[in-house]
Amino acid sequence: MKEVVAGIDIGGTNTVFGLIDKAGNILAEHSLKTTDYPKIENFVSALAAVINKLMEGKANLKLAAIGIGAPDANYNRGTIELATNLAWKGIVPLTEFIRKKIDVPVVITNDANAAAIGEMIFGGAKKMKDFIVLTLGTGLGSGIVVNGEVVYGSTGFAGELGHTIVVPGGRDCGCGRQGCLETYASASGLVRTVLYMLSEMSEESILRDIPPSELTAKKIAEAAAQKDPIAVEALDYTAEILAFGIGNAIVFSSPEAVFLFGGLAQAGEMLFAPVRKYVDENVMALFKGTVKILPSVVSESNAAVLGAAALAWNELKK
Amino acid sequence: MKEVVAGIDIGGTNTVFGLIDKAGNILAEHSLKTTDYPKIENFVSALAAVINKLMEGKANLKLAAIGIGAPDANYNRGTIELATNLAWKGIVPLTEFIRKKIDVPVVITNDANAAAIGEMIFGGAKKMKDFIVLTLGTGLGSGIVVNGEVVYGSTGFAGELGHTIVVPGGRDCGCGRQGCLETYASASGLVRTVLYMLSEMSEESILRDIPPSELTAKKIAEAAAQKDPIAVEALDYTAEILAFGIGNAIVFSSPEAVFLFGGLAQAGEMLFAPVRKYVDENVMALFKGTVKILPSVVSESNAAVLGAAALAWNELKK
Repeated sequence: MKEVVAGIDIGGTNTVFGLIDKAGNILAEHSLKTTDYPKIENFVSALAAVINKLMEGKANLKLAAIGIGAPDANYNRGTIELATNLAWKGIVPLTEFIRKKIDVPVVITNDANAAAIGEMIFGGAKKMKDFIVLTLGTGLGSGIVVNGEVVYGSTGFAGELGHTIVVPGGRDCGCGRQGCLETYASASGLVRTVLYMLSEMSEESILRDIPPSELTAKKIAEAAAQKDPIAVEALDYTAEILAFGIGNAIVFSSPEAVFLFGGLAQAGEMLFAPVRKYVDENVMALFKGTVKILPSVVSESNAAVLGAAALAWNELKK
Repeated sequence: MKEVVAGIDIGGTNTVFGLIDKAGNILAEHSLKTTDYPKIENFVSALAAVINKLMEGKANLKLAAIGIGAPDANYNRGTIELATNLAWKGIVPLTEFIRKKIDVPVVITNDANAAAIGEMIFGGAKKMKDFIVLTLGTGLGSGIVVNGEVVYGSTGFAGELGHTIVVPGGRDCGCGRQGCLETYASASGLVRTVLYMLSEMSEESILRDIPPSELTAKKIAEAAAQKDPIAVEALDYTAEILAFGIGNAIVFSSPEAVFLFGGLAQAGEMLFAPVRKYVDENVMALFKGTVKILPSVVSESNAAVLGAAALAWNELKK
């Protein structure tokens, strides 16, 4: 009998399921529309039904655990709390609800922590004890690993590097404060930087022909690849601020590597090269040359489900 | 037979020794002038002689381990590296040297990490898994505990919160960069702030009668207690910047408490009250009310030796 875990990625729109073995192979997949289940009871029933269906007729497989990645999830308490992009309000004790339906260990954490565990179990951090994963999407999420363990802190919500303030009095942030790292170093931060550069610089730019509401990190990266001066300058500034945030994280936990992941990281060397340059120029001398800035090696399309599965496998090791 | 450990605090001027039992009682003490031993071999011999002398004639005691707190010490490697305030140059494998003379486990870490372990074993953090100790002296040292373990990172040098940059382009720091937290939130940072306030504000102040080279955090705190307007304003600004640094540390590791220790912390409520106010006002909503700002409860005069002893006791538990 071969053990497998279920990796579940709960997103605002879709919930994706995978059955995953110890080597990270995805043996079966399924998905649901999260928005079809505004009541949490119905969602839990549907989730349990999917897992049972995935296991159906697979007498050689044994479900060992369930791992879940979800926004606003709390590992310590097994909850989703005050989620802004999900219909379920308040504090949802999700792992408890699921355990009532399926009697295996159930663990939950947020997407960025799941990405970090995915990197540790299946990706580029297999031999690392101290590293950080930054997910550069609409916001900036972070999963921090210290001594081989994800940092959850006393509240279970640790690892919010997107909300370190890097520019006091800077850009308005969704968290209600100003100048947070994610308002600069994220896909949407890059768009804001382009809008600012368009106001400050007088250079020609193909970005002047795109309505601001349609600007994306991808279009900006494509423009930068064509040497568009505004796009190049905006990417450089984004890299500089990201490197500043990374520099402050380095003096905290002295990671062996920082992995960059998500939409903005797709810009590739156009982002990585200046990030490495600025980290090297600005990091405290004690740490110079000690930190690798690396792309994630977990494939973007499966990363969320693999991260959730890695969370489950990691829990079973404890 | 009762087990004891030797706690050793190596400072630029003096090296202080204590024999300490599991409850934190100091059973014997001694000290050396560090500056009398410019050669490391001679220092190690003298250190071993002191320990042997302290144990002499105590047939009921057994030396179980040696713990050392020293500037620029590296726990991972057992070394003191490129110390700026000690005569021994380069990389000194101190624990290895000592183990050749006395065959017990020998561990070393820097002063701030030793203070954190002291707080965990003998002080106010006995039941805490996640906390931070900030030592506010000439500089700002930090010991960070996550999941019950000190954060050393991949290099062994993690936990340098004094060198997070809080004011980009701000005050010159001894590390060669600008705007580091310790240039504002430390005893010497407070002195710099007073000098700045004396230039900016026109209020009368008894601090105008003290030569800048004789200004100390203690004199400023005394002036603030007398409601001296410059001293009050300088302490408030110091508290605001310290709270800003603490706020960024909170989103990283979500500690249960932050302990303030050292010269500047002696200002007591004049510092703690505004630090608490600014942390509460400015911390990310997710963490509001989750972090206690506390004075260290390890007595300042014995803290370094007790911290070094706690390091040894903690090692024996592993």
